[in-house]
Amino acid sequence: MKADLVVRGISQLVTAEGPGPKHGAAMRQLKVVEQAALAVADGRIQWAGAEGEWGGEAAATIDVEQRAIVPGLVDPHTHAVWAGDRLEDFDARISGVPYERILASGGGIWSTIRATAAATQDELVALAKPRIDALLRSGATTIEVKSGYGFALEAEIGMLQTIRALAGLTRARVVPTLLIHVPPKEAAERAAYVSDVCQTLIPEVAGQKLAVAVDVFVEKEAWSAAEAERIFASAQQHGLAIKLHTEQFHRVGGLELGLRMGALSVDHLEACSPEQVAAIAGSSTIATILPGVSLHLGLPPAPGRGLIDAGAAVAVGTDLNPGSSPLFSPAMALALAVRLNGLTAQEALVGGTTNAACALGLPEAGRIEPGLPADFLVLQGSDWRELVYTLGSNPVREVWIRGEKVAA
Amino acid sequence: MKADLVVRGISQLVTAEGPGPKHGAAMRQLKVVEQAALAVADGRIQWAGAEGEWGGEAAATIDVEQRAIVPGLVDPHTHAVWAGDRLEDFDARISGVPYERILASGGGIWSTIRATAAATQDELVALAKPRIDALLRSGATTIEVKSGYGFALEAEIGMLQTIRALAGLTRARVVPTLLIHVPPKEAAERAAYVSDVCQTLIPEVAGQKLAVAVDVFVEKEAWSAAEAERIFASAQQHGLAIKLHTEQFHRVGGLELGLRMGALSVDHLEACSPEQVAAIAGSSTIATILPGVSLHLGLPPAPGRGLIDAGAAVAVGTDLNPGSSPLFSPAMALALAVRLNGLTAQEALVGGTTNAACALGLPEAGRIEPGLPADFLVLQGSDWRELVYTLGSNPVREVWIRGEKVAA
Repeated sequence: MKADLVVRGISQLVTAEGPGPKHGAAMRQLKVVEQAALAVADGRIQWAGAEGEWGGEAAATIDVEQRAIVPGLVDPHTHAVWAGDRLEDFDARISGVPYERILASGGGIWSTIRATAAATQDELVALAKPRIDALLRSGATTIEVKSGYGFALEAEIGMLQTIRALAGLTRARVVPTLLIHVPPKEAAERAAYVSDVCQTLIPEVAGQKLAVAVDVFVEKEAWSAAEAERIFASAQQHGLAIKLHTEQFHRVGGLELGLRMGALSVDHLEACSPEQVAAIAGSSTIATILPGVSLHLGLPPAPGRGLIDAGAAVAVGTDLNPGSSPLFSPAMALALAVRLNGLTAQEALVGGTTNAACALGLPEAGRIEPGLPADFLVLQGSDWRELVYTLGSNPVREVWIRGEKVAA
Repeated sequence: MKADLVVRGISQLVTAEGPGPKHGAAMRQLKVVEQAALAVADGRIQWAGAEGEWGGEAAATIDVEQRAIVPGLVDPHTHAVWAGDRLEDFDARISGVPYERILASGGGIWSTIRATAAATQDELVALAKPRIDALLRSGATTIEVKSGYGFALEAEIGMLQTIRALAGLTRARVVPTLLIHVPPKEAAERAAYVSDVCQTLIPEVAGQKLAVAVDVFVEKEAWSAAEAERIFASAQQHGLAIKLHTEQFHRVGGLELGLRMGALSVDHLEACSPEQVAAIAGSSTIATILPGVSLHLGLPPAPGRGLIDAGAAVAVGTDLNPGSSPLFSPAMALALAVRLNGLTAQEALVGGTTNAACALGLPEAGRIEPGLPADFLVLQGSDWRELVYTLGSNPVREVWIRGEKVAA
């Protein structure tokens, strides 16, 4: 078959190989072809290899002039839809005001929930679109976006509809997740809220295909493992995958629950014990680390190095959100994973591509391989490691999705 | 006088006020005018204040549509001219190879010196120009650039000529510094090298006005305080200001020497003792902190918070260089100073504007004030704190230098 496009002059064509999550040392096994070319047909990779070995025909040819190409990045964890801002909180926190006082003065996550609930869907789309654009320009061709600032069931549905509307406005692949984020303030209302989530919200979301997974924030100040278990049982009954915000500050059983119920991913993990690291390594669940939070809040980073050394499959996300990670670049998330979580450049790339795709249950994203969607990045330089080395400027020159250049 | 341009619709016009370094609590004293305007005439600020109070005439008017404006940033410490790269070092280091082994295998700073010495001036300009452009786009309207990868005296002159050539190719104000970086490998050659620097290099540099200051790297593995003292004496004799890389890893007398000789700035300071912090606070020397190094190398940050609490005047720079700080954004340097060095947003802005200008001996840069050059930034958002809050995308929408938009 004739290719639609051949891309030549690739100094290094770099990708993980083969489907499925890469565990432990396999996260360092990249395929690097120097002086490479790739061919695109019908929006998919038709062929990729050494430039000298390309013998096909193509309708068009471009030369990237000795720049490196890597797979499009996958951002497996964002809260990109919110209204209001958290600048007052930020200012107060960095000026030394304790979080309890910020919360008491009306700040913190409930201020974001209030502002988000008060916004129309059009307003939310207008606010979130530039954030999606920023993620895309810095390399994300697939972006997970969570609900979770709605709280009221109808507001959560509204957030998922907003995410669906956003998906129609960007060339990036948007993956929606229903996040059950914070419990009602009154303890007496928690059980009824969980019942509503299980009996009303999840069936509705599954019926309308508004999300592919359900995420629960399991934490001392959020949901218990027992509450999450009820929610996950409903999610699985309705054919939705499950994932967790867990072990961020405390160990309250979220991790063990997630592994037992076959979660796609367990996210955060800053408070993991060595035994828990070993348990993740022995499972098929992806460990998603979020270094933006560590930088922004100045908290200890997740044990990325330890997870990989134990044999886990690690993914890296931005956790883009206004309170704990105003990080608009998946490339910078990888750069931070190297500096803060001890990943090598190779591990960071795998964590931001194929493993991140696995954390979303997407076997087709995050690799450059014949038959897969032609999602790839042309970097600014000839050495792909600049993707994680560069700080403060965008190492991504061009973003290609399904064989078309969508940002440059 | 009629203005050339009035800028209206400024949600917040933010600047430090008045000449001279801001010490301690004065670093939090910003002037913030809401619903502001500013007028430019002959490349200088003619007037700035509340929009309703502007009663003059102007040849042109623009509306920034409720965006914040801050002074152009001043990057007081870069090594933006180099050839070669340090990606092998980076890869080795993050894979756990000790620095001694990297040095032994030909890596480290000497690999940059070899590559820089081997490059032509045209090649160096071509390599450095995109770096200057990146600094400019992320807000630097004044950029210090050091020599120091030449080593041989003629190569140091060549680097300063390269910096002069760069200055002619950018709209940013480029401030050249002669850096006496690393000593000869043979101890026996050190005294002769210092003599050559004092008797040949410095007079030549001063005569050709190739630099405004002389910087020495005082460190256990670099120059001693006694050697630096000889070099500084020659610098001062020839009318050049002095500054130091000092207390980065060890305390070998650099800081005390710098304060005693009236250095413009002492840079790095990661290894400062509380007594040294107090000594800086009691001086007129600027304390320049470089958080990119802390992030990139994973080393303890300089005591920014402690310096300000003690009453010092702190400046913030990128330290852009290939080995220890590949940080191409002065805005991100400020964002990191908040997260890693404990500065507030207000202190970071002062540290990246007027105090950084003072670290370069420039009384006219870093403030928005009638009579000063019209160097300012239009930010993406309406709240100026986004300049230091945003991670991973450029918070700067437009860069104006001497009243003209030079990047957007």
